[in-house]
Amino acid sequence: MLTLYYTSGTCARASHITLEEAGADYETVRVNFATNDQNKPEFLAINPKGRVPALVTDRGILTETPAILLYIAQCFPDAGLAPVEDHFATAELQSINSYLCSTVHVFHAHRPRGSRWADDEASIDAMKKKVPENMLNAFQHIEKNMFKGPWVMGDTYTVADPYLFTLSCWLKGDGVNIDDLPTIAEHRERMLERPAVQKVLAVEEA
Amino acid sequence: MLTLYYTSGTCARASHITLEEAGADYETVRVNFATNDQNKPEFLAINPKGRVPALVTDRGILTETPAILLYIAQCFPDAGLAPVEDHFATAELQSINSYLCSTVHVFHAHRPRGSRWADDEASIDAMKKKVPENMLNAFQHIEKNMFKGPWVMGDTYTVADPYLFTLSCWLKGDGVNIDDLPTIAEHRERMLERPAVQKVLAVEEA
Repeated sequence: MLTLYYTSGTCARASHITLEEAGADYETVRVNFATNDQNKPEFLAINPKGRVPALVTDRGILTETPAILLYIAQCFPDAGLAPVEDHFATAELQSINSYLCSTVHVFHAHRPRGSRWADDEASIDAMKKKVPENMLNAFQHIEKNMFKGPWVMGDTYTVADPYLFTLSCWLKGDGVNIDDLPTIAEHRERMLERPAVQKVLAVEEA
Repeated sequence: MLTLYYTSGTCARASHITLEEAGADYETVRVNFATNDQNKPEFLAINPKGRVPALVTDRGILTETPAILLYIAQCFPDAGLAPVEDHFATAELQSINSYLCSTVHVFHAHRPRGSRWADDEASIDAMKKKVPENMLNAFQHIEKNMFKGPWVMGDTYTVADPYLFTLSCWLKGDGVNIDDLPTIAEHRERMLERPAVQKVLAVEEA
């Protein structure tokens, strides 16, 4: 049994969708950011970083989305969620997910979490102002240089798809009109047709 | 044959050391940041992101350190640089490397690269001011919650070791006294004894 600690609307959505796509036996625990539960001792015992996602396994606890996604894909090879037998293709997949994690997610975080990187309000406001431009540029880079279509890696759906979808759900709040990103917009529609995505969004909204 | 595009003192050092540890047949090409070569057409054809490292392989070009490190480890299994047969241990390794990439490297980047996230000088200065505190906190978190010893993952040297070493080399410039991080300081000394590390540092300095 796997247990995913998640918060609605966060990057944990990618892991949640992937558990569902894999057909894994799992349960979820919601961490309420509104009451700051991520920084309470009960959750810090799960993840000292005070972040979601955290995936509790029989072997221990995993954090960081790129690691969790590849782990699920490797544990459920029949689901075909990563090209696990092909080292180069796996590296391409990990490269995309690393970019989403370390560049795109970080661009986004400068809107709600600017206090991580500066203390004064004026600087935090200045960071927020640059988020629309950075997010648009990053997704345009993805459209131009990474996305193969119809799925991120080409003909085969992989764990990069729910991750890209999850981050694309932040575009509106980040001041980007998804109509300016036609490939990303089409990908989102394609994702919304998947039963696993529909189920996870319903759980998040319940 | 593999070709690593690198710049001295950057995170490309981790991939460079790993190629050396793996016994790979590789060559290196230095990208000169001082003359902004990373943003010239010749290099953007290699990596449209204008960043190092980039690893040119027979199958294509790979970017992003966590992806490159796992790829080298998987291609040279006899070197034993990652627990590639153990999905959970591999995920733990990828989790550490993802944290180094998306949190620690990003904390550091707010000193030399603040213009990525805000436009005005006052905000960029405010970001620089917070770097020592963030880097110290991040490395203390690594010491307390990640590092097993004597290597990052425990008794066995893995690709997390050159990555941690590479980022620890930035501490002084980031205003952190490594003597406040005894485990990290010991790890750095242990790394400096390795012939692969000595060779790579000599190449960078040449």
